[in-house]
Amino acid sequence: MPDHETTTPTPDLPRRRVVVLSGGVGGARFLHGVARALPADDVTAIVNTGDDLAHWGLSISPDLDTVMYTLADLADEARGWGLLGETFGALEMMRRYGGDAWFSLGDRDLATHLVRTQALAAGATLSEVTRRLCLAVGVPQRVLPMTDGSCRTRIDTADHGALPFQDWFVRLRTAPEARRVWFDGDPPPAPEVIPAIRAADLVLFGPSNPYVSIDPILDRPGVREAIAGKPVVAVSPIVGGQAVKGPLAAMIATIEGEPASAAAVARHYGGLIAGMVVERGDEGAFADDPALRGIRVLATDTIMGDEAGRLRLARETIAFAATV
Amino acid sequence: MPDHETTTPTPDLPRRRVVVLSGGVGGARFLHGVARALPADDVTAIVNTGDDLAHWGLSISPDLDTVMYTLADLADEARGWGLLGETFGALEMMRRYGGDAWFSLGDRDLATHLVRTQALAAGATLSEVTRRLCLAVGVPQRVLPMTDGSCRTRIDTADHGALPFQDWFVRLRTAPEARRVWFDGDPPPAPEVIPAIRAADLVLFGPSNPYVSIDPILDRPGVREAIAGKPVVAVSPIVGGQAVKGPLAAMIATIEGEPASAAAVARHYGGLIAGMVVERGDEGAFADDPALRGIRVLATDTIMGDEAGRLRLARETIAFAATV
Repeated sequence: MPDHETTTPTPDLPRRRVVVLSGGVGGARFLHGVARALPADDVTAIVNTGDDLAHWGLSISPDLDTVMYTLADLADEARGWGLLGETFGALEMMRRYGGDAWFSLGDRDLATHLVRTQALAAGATLSEVTRRLCLAVGVPQRVLPMTDGSCRTRIDTADHGALPFQDWFVRLRTAPEARRVWFDGDPPPAPEVIPAIRAADLVLFGPSNPYVSIDPILDRPGVREAIAGKPVVAVSPIVGGQAVKGPLAAMIATIEGEPASAAAVARHYGGLIAGMVVERGDEGAFADDPALRGIRVLATDTIMGDEAGRLRLARETIAFAATV
Repeated sequence: MPDHETTTPTPDLPRRRVVVLSGGVGGARFLHGVARALPADDVTAIVNTGDDLAHWGLSISPDLDTVMYTLADLADEARGWGLLGETFGALEMMRRYGGDAWFSLGDRDLATHLVRTQALAAGATLSEVTRRLCLAVGVPQRVLPMTDGSCRTRIDTADHGALPFQDWFVRLRTAPEARRVWFDGDPPPAPEVIPAIRAADLVLFGPSNPYVSIDPILDRPGVREAIAGKPVVAVSPIVGGQAVKGPLAAMIATIEGEPASAAAVARHYGGLIAGMVVERGDEGAFADDPALRGIRVLATDTIMGDEAGRLRLARETIAFAATV
């Protein structure tokens, strides 16, 4: 094979620009596969910032960081959050000072928040500082916060009223039943979000929590309209009635009044998606529900065990999305 | 001996309230001895904050922290700065982000700066947050910043103009010759400083750099006046013509135009001190200079090797100060 063929796009494989909407871990791992499947220039992540919080005086964007660390191969996959080789000296000392210690910030991770906090204080936007951080750790894909403004996810609970997301998720370990999710603040999407969607050939929803990860992105003004008409495929975060990670199964039961299932997630997204990637065995419910008959389903192995599994799922999803 | 005698002050040893003016390491070690020699209620440290800096968006008070860590037995004495068992994960990651890495902030140390920065942002004074931090790490002695305002030490150099202290001291490792030291800002002393001096029976200057550690304290409005009339004793930071630590010897040569000596330090303090504690062998110059004949001198072993050495020097200094 002549050398030039290895660097020239194959003429019969059209360029496919992909936008992935993502929350934290699940979406980040799926993105990791997409980033390995396509040229970096063709991959844009639009990431939830509804989970963002101010803690220890720092501006923290957990989902943006999870995506960045995962794409940079710096994530501690075994622990499920944070950085590889992390230490917790600052947290230990903070406990001694009687400071808030319910949100575990690692020492290496602190550098990310310090850089972000300083840059924002100096007038940079969250989009700008995210790009700077990503380039520094070697992430060439475009990682966009859903907004440069403030949009904070709130969880209405029975016993504790309306809670900031991280209070419910981390401090109270999702124990209080989530009755409703809403967003405090309705800022526009970040400047590159709508252009990225418009330029995309495919829009993928990562296997993230629809209520607290994907909805905050979709609810930015103009995002649903920009997505309409694009081939949109969601990867189900529910596998065999269970959430791979997190409180989603219980949330579906409470909010939708039905057992957790990939089909319930599809119904939640309504007419927005043209296809869904589900675990083998979860596809039956789609044929049974007349409301879901317009949605094409790819049943495959959706649990991303390792890097090869992520790459395979990404390739299958992209190929499938080209057919919807 | 009846039990009550162990908790009742010995009647023939009058209560001696001591104020110690201090910079970083040398002053902190001397204070450590004073703190072991006297009841906690009788010891007040007034600490230089001219070295304070904003770094990584954090409010950092190096001398206050050195004093606090040393009194709490948390200081890394072998390294000469920072905390025992310190790690540097944040610094390593900050390097990766291309952030400023010339000022080494440890991970545990970061908690101190985060607490301080947050408290100051919430409206606390530096005096208040210092008390809170000290109590949290078990320092019952009163540790006062010289001021709650902003007073920044500047070093006039030949080649680099006027440098902020830490730029000169840490970033440039004191290489540019220091021609003059001045202070940007002339805030009043912190609220407890003058009352503490007025209530003191003895005022001691720790073995700190007179130009960049003691002078900034003395220059706070009202401090010299409050000290006048008290028995004031300085512990020499110069031993046999050399500084125990830091750039003092070179500074004396440039600023005073004479070789470094304990006598040169005494001349710099002028009529403010009634006595000086010097290393054995350094006392001769005091008898030779008519200007110094009014100053009583205690020649002893001033190098504080270990905790016992600090305690001995503190006891000797306090006993000597009672005679001047």
